[in-house]
Amino acid sequence: MAPNKNLAATVYGPNDLRLDERPIPEPAFNEVVVEVDTCGICGTDIHFLKDGGFGAQRLVKPIVLGHESAGVVRKVGSAVTHLKVGDRVAIEPAAGCRTCDLCKVGKYNICLDGKHCTTQKHDGNCSNYYAQYADCCFKLPDHVTMEEGALLEPLAVGVYAGRRADIRLGQRVIIFGAGPIGLVCLIAAKAMGATRTVILDLEHAKHRLEVAKKLGVTDVIGIRKEDTEEDLVKRIHEILGGPADRVLECSGSQPGMRVAIKATRNAGRICLVGLGNKDAQLPMVDAISREIEITTAMRYNHDYPAALEIVASGYVDVKPLVSHHFDLQDVHEAFRVASQGEGIKIMIHLVPRDTNNHGKFTN
Amino acid sequence: MAPNKNLAATVYGPNDLRLDERPIPEPAFNEVVVEVDTCGICGTDIHFLKDGGFGAQRLVKPIVLGHESAGVVRKVGSAVTHLKVGDRVAIEPAAGCRTCDLCKVGKYNICLDGKHCTTQKHDGNCSNYYAQYADCCFKLPDHVTMEEGALLEPLAVGVYAGRRADIRLGQRVIIFGAGPIGLVCLIAAKAMGATRTVILDLEHAKHRLEVAKKLGVTDVIGIRKEDTEEDLVKRIHEILGGPADRVLECSGSQPGMRVAIKATRNAGRICLVGLGNKDAQLPMVDAISREIEITTAMRYNHDYPAALEIVASGYVDVKPLVSHHFDLQDVHEAFRVASQGEGIKIMIHLVPRDTNNHGKFTN
Amino acid sequence: MAPNKNLAATVYGPNDLRLDERPIPEPAFNEVVVEVDTCGICGTDIHFLKDGGFGAQRLVKPIVLGHESAGVVRKVGSAVTHLKVGDRVAIEPAAGCRTCDLCKVGKYNICLDGKHCTTQKHDGNCSNYYAQYADCCFKLPDHVTMEEGALLEPLAVGVYAGRRADIRLGQRVIIFGAGPIGLVCLIAAKAMGATRTVILDLEHAKHRLEVAKKLGVTDVIGIRKEDTEEDLVKRIHEILGGPADRVLECSGSQPGMRVAIKATRNAGRICLVGLGNKDAQLPMVDAISREIEITTAMRYNHDYPAALEIVASGYVDVKPLVSHHFDLQDVHEAFRVASQGEGIKIMIHLVPRDTNNHGKFTN
Amino acid sequence: MAPNKNLAATVYGPNDLRLDERPIPEPAFNEVVVEVDTCGICGTDIHFLKDGGFGAQRLVKPIVLGHESAGVVRKVGSAVTHLKVGDRVAIEPAAGCRTCDLCKVGKYNICLDGKHCTTQKHDGNCSNYYAQYADCCFKLPDHVTMEEGALLEPLAVGVYAGRRADIRLGQRVIIFGAGPIGLVCLIAAKAMGATRTVILDLEHAKHRLEVAKKLGVTDVIGIRKEDTEEDLVKRIHEILGGPADRVLECSGSQPGMRVAIKATRNAGRICLVGLGNKDAQLPMVDAISREIEITTAMRYNHDYPAALEIVASGYVDVKPLVSHHFDLQDVHEAFRVASQGEGIKIMIHLVPRDTNNHGKFTN
Repeated sequence: MAPNKNLAATVYGPNDLRLDERPIPEPAFNEVVVEVDTCGICGTDIHFLKDGGFGAQRLVKPIVLGHESAGVVRKVGSAVTHLKVGDRVAIEPAAGCRTCDLCKVGKYNICLDGKHCTTQKHDGNCSNYYAQYADCCFKLPDHVTMEEGALLEPLAVGVYAGRRADIRLGQRVIIFGAGPIGLVCLIAAKAMGATRTVILDLEHAKHRLEVAKKLGVTDVIGIRKEDTEEDLVKRIHEILGGPADRVLECSGSQPGMRVAIKATRNAGRICLVGLGNKDAQLPMVDAISREIEITTAMRYNHDYPAALEIVASGYVDVKPLVSHHFDLQDVHEAFRVASQGEGIKIMIHLVPRDTNNHGKFTN
Repeated sequence: MAPNKNLAATVYGPNDLRLDERPIPEPAFNEVVVEVDTCGICGTDIHFLKDGGFGAQRLVKPIVLGHESAGVVRKVGSAVTHLKVGDRVAIEPAAGCRTCDLCKVGKYNICLDGKHCTTQKHDGNCSNYYAQYADCCFKLPDHVTMEEGALLEPLAVGVYAGRRADIRLGQRVIIFGAGPIGLVCLIAAKAMGATRTVILDLEHAKHRLEVAKKLGVTDVIGIRKEDTEEDLVKRIHEILGGPADRVLECSGSQPGMRVAIKATRNAGRICLVGLGNKDAQLPMVDAISREIEITTAMRYNHDYPAALEIVASGYVDVKPLVSHHFDLQDVHEAFRVASQGEGIKIMIHLVPRDTNNHGKFTN
Repeated sequence: MAPNKNLAATVYGPNDLRLDERPIPEPAFNEVVVEVDTCGICGTDIHFLKDGGFGAQRLVKPIVLGHESAGVVRKVGSAVTHLKVGDRVAIEPAAGCRTCDLCKVGKYNICLDGKHCTTQKHDGNCSNYYAQYADCCFKLPDHVTMEEGALLEPLAVGVYAGRRADIRLGQRVIIFGAGPIGLVCLIAAKAMGATRTVILDLEHAKHRLEVAKKLGVTDVIGIRKEDTEEDLVKRIHEILGGPADRVLECSGSQPGMRVAIKATRNAGRICLVGLGNKDAQLPMVDAISREIEITTAMRYNHDYPAALEIVASGYVDVKPLVSHHFDLQDVHEAFRVASQGEGIKIMIHLVPRDTNNHGKFTN
Repeated sequence: MAPNKNLAATVYGPNDLRLDERPIPEPAFNEVVVEVDTCGICGTDIHFLKDGGFGAQRLVKPIVLGHESAGVVRKVGSAVTHLKVGDRVAIEPAAGCRTCDLCKVGKYNICLDGKHCTTQKHDGNCSNYYAQYADCCFKLPDHVTMEEGALLEPLAVGVYAGRRADIRLGQRVIIFGAGPIGLVCLIAAKAMGATRTVILDLEHAKHRLEVAKKLGVTDVIGIRKEDTEEDLVKRIHEILGGPADRVLECSGSQPGMRVAIKATRNAGRICLVGLGNKDAQLPMVDAISREIEITTAMRYNHDYPAALEIVASGYVDVKPLVSHHFDLQDVHEAFRVASQGEGIKIMIHLVPRDTNNHGKFTN
C-alpha cells in the first residue's frame, strides 16, 4: 500500500517548486527509512522557496523542503534496536556530527557539520520516504496523531526557547510574533509556569492573535503603524502588571528586539528565536545598565522527548495550531497559502488523512 | 473590633503549650504590625512542642509557635510606603540580616543571623499581633483568602524545592512523604511541568495519599513494612515508565533518601527538603558513579511572590491541603490533631473564620 | 592629624569641578565614617565632569566625584561590630535598598533605589570623609596598600565581568578596550584560567596596550582606521588559534560589540561591560544562528571579597595599573590628565602618599 | 621500529596479571590505531588487579589494564581527517554511544553503553597498540611530552571535578586525599582561582603531602588515628581562615565525606570524586539545614582540550606528579609499587623513554 515512488517537494530556485521524483532511500546501519505521512510547512521553507535560501544558507543545488514530519518506519538499519517496521514516529530533523567540540558537550543543534534538514547541504523530508538516524526518530504512542507528531518539531523549538529563556513559575512573559513559533513559545511558556503572558503581532494578523487567545494568553497586542516603542512598552506593562521577567522574541524584527529590551525588568532575560534582517539597531546602554541578558536559541537541543511527553500526557494541546490541510499534489497551493500568512500551521499529507491515525485528527 | 490583647501560642517546654499574653508590638520604621487572622501548623511547630526543639534549634526560652500566617496590617512603620493599615497580607517568616556574605548574594534563607520564626531566638507568629519587616509582608488580592495566604508559606517551600531540584517540562518526579510539604512539592512539581509523578508515604497514611490523588499525582505508593528498597525502586519505575529525572525528598528519612538515589536516572537530581535523623547511611558509590546531584533546600528564597502569583491566578489550587480548622482557644486540640498526623494542614483562626475573606473559604 | 574639614571634588556642571567644603558626616547606626586616603579616577567621573552625566544619569545637583576609594575608619556607628576606629578599609561604593525584589535575590548592584556613588542622587567619595554602610567597608590586611585598596573597585568590575562571562580554564578570551576596565578584565580572565588572550584598542593607545603586555596578554591589536571588521576577526583568530570562547567588551563601542559577535565561536559567550552610545547596530542573525549568548555586567555583585583575596594573596598584581599620582589640591590637573587618556589609573591622594601604608607603594 | 606484536597488561583475576599477546588492531572508519608510548597506572587498575573489579564493575573476562595513555598514530581510519600517521596524541579513554539521552545532552561520561576503558566490557590501553575513536585522540604539540600526554587523563578528572564543584576566584578549597586524583584536583583548584587550599591524607602518606606542598597548597593535614571530626574541622578552619567554600572529596571515605560537610560554609558546594565503600553515613541534617550542595563527578566531560591547553601553555605543571618509571616488561613490579602506594604516579613505558619526546622528560 506504501507508495512505490518517492515524490519530494523540491525547490530549484526562487519560486520554483517542483514535485521531484527521488530514489527511495535504503537505511544505513544506524538509520531507519520512514514513509512520511504528514509534514508541516515552516517559515524556513517559505524563505527557501521565495528567496532561494534563508539566513546564511543559500540554495546551491535543488533542495527538498520540509522538516516537520511524522510517518511510519518502513525499513530498519542493521544496528537499530529500538524501532521496528510499522512503528509510527516523529522525525527530529537535526543531528550533529557527534564528534566535534560542540557535539561532545551536547550542542549538536549548532554543530557546524550537522545534518540539519533544509539547509544548503541537506534535503528536507517533505517526501514520501526519508532516511534518518534511528536515534532521531521518536516513537509515537497510539493516541498521538501524525499531525501532532509533525507538530513536535515547532513545539520542540518552543520548549527549547523557554528553557533558554529560563522561564519559571509565576513569571510575566512577552512573546513577539504570533506565527507558529510565537504560538508554540506561548504554549511552552505557559506550561513552564508563566502566569501572565502577552503576545504581539501586526494588527492585521488578527487570526493569529485569535489563536493565541484560544491558547490562553493573558492578552494580545495588535501593533498599529503609528505605535511607538514607548506605546508598546506601556501597553505591555499594563497587561502584565509591570515589566516582563522573560521575553521570547520570535519576530526577528528590530522593533521586536528593541521593545523586548525596553519592556523587560532589570536582570530580566530575553531569548531571541526569530531570524530577520542581518543587523538590528538595539538600545544596548539600556540593556547593559539594567543587566538584561540576551540569549539565543537555534532549533532545539534534545527537546523532542519533552515535547512528545507533554503532548502525549495531555499537558498541552497543540491541535489549535493546525489551520489547513493539503495533499501532496496540492503542494503549490499549500505553499501559496503559507506564503501569504493566511493560516497558522499548514499540513501537507503525503498519504490520505488519518491513514495512520487511531481515530480522526480534529481540532 | 481588633483584639485588645495579644495572645500567643507559646511553647515552654516539651508538651507545655500555653496561651501566653504578650505585649502588643509597635512597628519599627521598616515594619508593619499585622493582626494575624489565620495560622497553619507546621511540622516544625510540632517538633518544638513535642521535643522542645527541632534539629539544631533547641528551646532556651519560651517561644511562640507558628510561621504560616496571614492577617491584616494594623500599624505601619515610618519608612514603609508599599503597605497601609487595612491591607490583607501574607507574612513571610524568614528574613536575613541583610549585611552578611550570604544575604549579599541573596541567600537570606540560611543567614546565620536571620530573623527566622520559631527558632531558638525568634518567636513565631501564632499570636494576635506580630511585627514584621514590611518587605516580608505580601499584599493579598481581594479574592485570595486568609487561608490561602497562610498556605503561601508551605507553598513557597514547594516552589523553592522545585527550583532547587530544577524541575523541567515533561519530567518524571518522585516525592517522598505525603505530608503538607510533600503535597506542596507535588503541586509545584506539576506546575513546573512534571508530567509523571509518584508520591510515597507509609501505608497507613492513606488520607494523605488520597489528597495527593486529588492533586493529580500519577500514582501513589503506600509503603508496607516488608517492602525492600528494591521493591520500591521497581514500583516507582513502573509508575513513571522508567527512572526518575528529579526527586523531592520530604520525609527526612534514611529509606527515603536511599530510594531517592537508587530510583533516579544517571545525571538525575535530588533535592533534600525533609529533616530527620542527624545522620543517614546513603549509597554514595551508586550516587557518584551515576553522577547524581544531591542538592538541599531550606525554607525559600524570595518565593512568596511566585507562590502568591500562582495561587492568585488560579494556576494552582492549594485549598485541598486544608483538613481542619480550630479557633485560637482550641489550640491544644489543634496541636493534638496535628501531632497525631490525622489531617493534612490544620488552620488556627485567631479571628472568627472568614472575617477578613471576601467570601467563604471552602474546599 | 586627620583633616578638620571635609573637602570634596564636586562637579557643578560640564567642566565645572570645584573643591567644595562639605560637613564632616556622622555615622548612622550601621555606618562607619572613613577618612579617605586614596581615590582613583574612573571613566564615569570623567563623563560626569565633561558631559554633566553618564548614560541615563544626568546631573541635577552638584555631585561629589570618585568611587574608587580606600581610607581609615574614624567613626563607627552604634550597631557596627566588625570594624573599629583605625581600621584600614576599601570602600565598596554600591549598596542596594535591601528590600526590593532585586536585593532579595542578591542583585543589589542594579537595585533601582540603591545608594550607588556618583549617580544622580548619590555623592561619590573623593572627599576627606565619607560615611558608608559598614558592611560595604572591607578591612585591608596590613600589607595591602591604600592604592591597592582603591583598585579593588575596578578589579571587582573585572572579577564580576569574568564571572558573568563564565570564563573557564583553558579558554580563549578577547577583551575590547585597554583602559583600566579592559585591563582589570584581562587580569581577571587570566586569573580564571584563560590561557590565550587578546586585547584590542585604538592604535594610538599604545601605552595601554603596553600595560596589557606587562600583564601577560598573549598579544595586542592596535586598531587602525582602515581595519575592517573582517580584518580584526582574522587577526584575533590568528592570535587565539581559533575563534574566542568568551569576550569581555569594555569599549562600549559598536565596532567592539560587532567584532565580539563575529569573532566568537558557536555557543560562545560575550559579556558587555562598557557603556557607549545609546544604540548599537549588531549582527543579530549571526548571533542567533550561532547561539551566541550576550550577557551584561553592571558594577559588581559582592565581588570585593574575592578581589581583596586575590590581591592580598598575591594571586594577581594590580599595581601596574597605576600611572599617575596627584594630591587632592591638584585635582583639576588630575582630571585633565585622566580626560586626555594619557595614563591608565590616576590616583588622587587625600592625605600624603604612604601615610597609611605599611611601606611605600611602588610599581 | 614499531613493535610487531601487541603485548597487553591483562588482568585475569585477583592478583593475576599477565603480559598477553593480543592481535594488532585495525582502525574502523572513524578510528585511529595508536602505538602506545606511555601509560600511567590509576587506582582503578590497582582495584581491578587486587580485587578483580572496581565498584559495580567486576571482571567477567580478562581485561587489559590502563587508561592513561599517550602514543603515536600508526593507522588512520577512512573517515578520519584531523589526524595522520605519526601524530603524537593523548588518548581519552571514555566515549559514549552517541545516541542515548545522556550522550545527546553531552553526558557521554556516564553513558550506560559507553566505551570506557577498563570496565567490565572494555579493555584498557596498556598495550602496544590501541584502536580508539579519532575524536578521542588529542594531538600533542611538539613540546608536550608523552608523560604529560598520559597525565592529561588524571588532569582532566581534576579539571572536571573543579568545574562540577564550581570553583571560583578567591575561594577556600579543601581536598580530601593526596593521591594522584587529589593532587590533580589541587592543581585544578588553584588554576581556577582558589587562593587558600588545604589537602588532607593519612599521616603516613607524607610523601604525598610533600608533593602537595611542592604544588603550592596553603597547608597540609596528616590525619592521625586519634583525630576526631571536630579536630579536623577546627584545623581546616584555621588553615583556611574560615569554613571552606568548596570541597573536592577524592578519598571516597566516610570520614572524608563527613568532614567535607561539616567544614563547609552555608551554601557551600562539595564535589564527590573518590569511590570507596558502597554506603556512607553522612550528617544530612547539617547538610540540609545549611543548604550544602553535594555534587558528583565521574570521569570527565570533554575536559581533555582544557587539560591539554593548560599544560601546553605552561599554565600548570603536572610533571611533579610522576614518581616512578617502568618498562612494560617490568609491569608486575610497577603494579607492586603502585599497589603499596609508595609513589604518586607510576609510568609504564611501552617504548624506550623519550623515544617520542622532543627532549628528555624531567621533573
